[in-house]
Amino acid sequence: MEEQETQPQEVKVVPEASMTFSPLDLLFNPRSVAIIGATPRENSVGGVITKNLLTKFKGKVYLVNPKYDEVNGIKYYKSILDVQDNIDLAVIAVPAPAVPKVTEECVKKGVKVVIIISGGFSEVGEEGAKLEEELRRVVQNRIRVLGPNCIGVYNAFNGLDTFFLPEDRMGRPRPGPVALISQSGAVAGAILDWAARRNIGVGLAVNYGNKLDISEAELLEYFARDNRVKVIVMYMEGLKYPGEGKRTLEVMKEVTSVKPIVVYKAGRTKAATGAVKSHTAALAGNYEVYRAMLKQANVIEADNLTDAFDMAKALATQPLPRGGNRVLVLTDSGGMGIQAVDALDMRGLQVPELSESLQEILRKQLPPLAVTRNPIDLTGSATDAMYKFVLDTVLPTSYVDMALIIALMQIPGLSINLGNYIVEARRFGKPIVVVSFGGNEYVAKFESNLEENGIPVYHAPHRAAKALWALYEYAKIKGAAKEW
Amino acid sequence: MEEQETQPQEVKVVPEASMTFSPLDLLFNPRSVAIIGATPRENSVGGVITKNLLTKFKGKVYLVNPKYDEVNGIKYYKSILDVQDNIDLAVIAVPAPAVPKVTEECVKKGVKVVIIISGGFSEVGEEGAKLEEELRRVVQNRIRVLGPNCIGVYNAFNGLDTFFLPEDRMGRPRPGPVALISQSGAVAGAILDWAARRNIGVGLAVNYGNKLDISEAELLEYFARDNRVKVIVMYMEGLKYPGEGKRTLEVMKEVTSVKPIVVYKAGRTKAATGAVKSHTAALAGNYEVYRAMLKQANVIEADNLTDAFDMAKALATQPLPRGGNRVLVLTDSGGMGIQAVDALDMRGLQVPELSESLQEILRKQLPPLAVTRNPIDLTGSATDAMYKFVLDTVLPTSYVDMALIIALMQIPGLSINLGNYIVEARRFGKPIVVVSFGGNEYVAKFESNLEENGIPVYHAPHRAAKALWALYEYAKIKGAAKEW
Repeated sequence: MEEQETQPQEVKVVPEASMTFSPLDLLFNPRSVAIIGATPRENSVGGVITKNLLTKFKGKVYLVNPKYDEVNGIKYYKSILDVQDNIDLAVIAVPAPAVPKVTEECVKKGVKVVIIISGGFSEVGEEGAKLEEELRRVVQNRIRVLGPNCIGVYNAFNGLDTFFLPEDRMGRPRPGPVALISQSGAVAGAILDWAARRNIGVGLAVNYGNKLDISEAELLEYFARDNRVKVIVMYMEGLKYPGEGKRTLEVMKEVTSVKPIVVYKAGRTKAATGAVKSHTAALAGNYEVYRAMLKQANVIEADNLTDAFDMAKALATQPLPRGGNRVLVLTDSGGMGIQAVDALDMRGLQVPELSESLQEILRKQLPPLAVTRNPIDLTGSATDAMYKFVLDTVLPTSYVDMALIIALMQIPGLSINLGNYIVEARRFGKPIVVVSFGGNEYVAKFESNLEENGIPVYHAPHRAAKALWALYEYAKIKGAAKEW
Repeated sequence: MEEQETQPQEVKVVPEASMTFSPLDLLFNPRSVAIIGATPRENSVGGVITKNLLTKFKGKVYLVNPKYDEVNGIKYYKSILDVQDNIDLAVIAVPAPAVPKVTEECVKKGVKVVIIISGGFSEVGEEGAKLEEELRRVVQNRIRVLGPNCIGVYNAFNGLDTFFLPEDRMGRPRPGPVALISQSGAVAGAILDWAARRNIGVGLAVNYGNKLDISEAELLEYFARDNRVKVIVMYMEGLKYPGEGKRTLEVMKEVTSVKPIVVYKAGRTKAATGAVKSHTAALAGNYEVYRAMLKQANVIEADNLTDAFDMAKALATQPLPRGGNRVLVLTDSGGMGIQAVDALDMRGLQVPELSESLQEILRKQLPPLAVTRNPIDLTGSATDAMYKFVLDTVLPTSYVDMALIIALMQIPGLSINLGNYIVEARRFGKPIVVVSFGGNEYVAKFESNLEENGIPVYHAPHRAAKALWALYEYAKIKGAAKEW
């Protein structure tokens, strides 16, 4: 199957006006989009895309559907060939049998890249596979294709949104530094919905479906070049054929020299192999092989979806630790401090005892019950000022490279202002993560204040520890940190 | 240190009126409570307890503080000895040096059990340790004591609440089948606050502080007898001295023959040993020893606090699997199904392929794209009716012992009514857990509808898989399930 491998292609038909844009630039940042299969029927796939683009997309939108002339004052074209303007991107949402024909029209029109949303190709069996071969012949070296059988692209920056789930079913996250590449459309949709509610900024997301042409490797390359992207999260189940691994590996290694990639690989067990095959026609493969490959490519591996975003939040917002793996743990709960030390130690990070002279400085200002050794336990008598004093005293020293701050806001001595002190401590240039746990309104306000100001918050010590681990791992990859 | 071991004691002074109540019954279900150190100052420790009991406790409350005669029409007594009525429970919240004296007065009054909230004993060093010894002499065999240095008892059923964090800082969970025993007061407070927001029913919670008298073992015994408790969650850091382990182990083994215990043991690593000692003066001990001990006592071990409650939610609401470890996975997302299979397989649970005849029945009703093998993937075309059909067809058969249902509510074909079908499937007497992921309003409504009707919901496949694992583990302990 090696010969099926899709190599990066030169596009033959390039309208002069857009000479400077590569096809993948146009996939994410088109100036004009045609929707082939546009419709005013709101709950259909084409209808949701039509509504999304008409209401949110910051560019020109042309609707193509021979069934309509004009609806609500908006013109419908019979064919994309009838549009006078240049079209950077076409979104195709018509029944599968019609896809080769409208794609051919896109080629004629000089469109450089199409998103084929339509399903009904190789994923549905033999007949679909034949149709996909027909489509492949139309496409070959003439136009770039995302899909078929995908939910396409979400771009929070310019409102390009082909995710065909209506807004009341899938929230849209705010623009932000995380980019998502998902092998599963449904998983991508659920992640965006989840990220929207949790105010996680996922600026760009893409699902590539049957991967007729544009592959993970090219998407990774594009995201590596896009400066708005600080970290790339990938959900993958497997590759389509063994040969694909080599190129993906090379690209990953290149990209991780520029920005971090976090991958959650599902289909790890033998038990899941069959399910992977029937889901994305991919080879789940031997997980140990994948693991070794990802490690070699300097990719950071996640154990599940939330784990991936836990790490991505830190990688997108925090500086890398420069000195090493030594963590200041500052807490108002001895119990949570112990849990943090456990989790850090299990991940190979250190919680070094502070020097006697530094502890002496701390003891002079802190109440007698406070523990100054590290973890520093301010106890239930903690106040905002005590946190500030410890951060300002310990974080600039060479004893620690990162900080894990635990603040149980159930303690009446703490106020929302504590968040401002923590945000101010960013000036020391060291990574900071915060653990908060509870459900009252102070907790919620404290957390959102921190996250809006670039400090990631976690609801359990082990999750915060894993985030610091990811920062340290990536620092080692970048040669910024040494091992202690 | 063996000789310090606290053995269950016979209480000497027993007022006739309460002959039938054991001291621990009175600790959780007193008819009358005196607050020694009561105060109208709302933000103090005594003030929060006073307000809690006056507004919520379903029993008589007597306020004791020589500083006051009457505030807002409520009488204050100079001493507990001035109260005419019988007192079942006294809550002591006065400065440490005054504690031995007021405890002595409680003994004279015939009070059977006291909660000593006050700190300033062995946890603060040598002088405090001396005061604790003085207290021990007052107490010895004359009265039962919870504490000192604890936040005491929360009972959602009768409003007994000595957790001295104000309501705006710590939400109170609804009455429910989970009981919590926490070695850390701050962790207990944060857990209740978290459980309140997530609508997890924690009916009873207790923190025992310095453990002068009443120990985990006795609390476990009490919760084993209380029929309102379906599962016991313990947060522990370590035992006070090596000899304590033996008795705790024996009690745990007894209790787990009646109802499940889930333990999260923090202080697992060598790195955390020092922090455990300075936090609760306990011996973190060798974790492998604890692990073996807990396993021998048939305790289910959790890896963190949320993990403990994930399992507790299932253990409190689901029947045990009777046949074995075979799981039906039903999903509308192939990707989430794969993640579930991975997680189940890693936990030693099976996802058996369904018989060809059963699959034939499914295929006749489901759309052609649906995968019927197990995991059953209804795909993005899923409807409520399809879920109902599969559950009603597969769950009663002998092929599966439990169900893990994934419903990504981003899919427009699903409605809130799906939850009702899932709740109805409880009639087959097999454990059911649900995975939901996202953030839109349908998701939230779907989830709360399920949880209110006794079906636990998890935001990730691996969490749901762990919950099923816990049910299967406990079924084996009870001899209800066989291994396959």
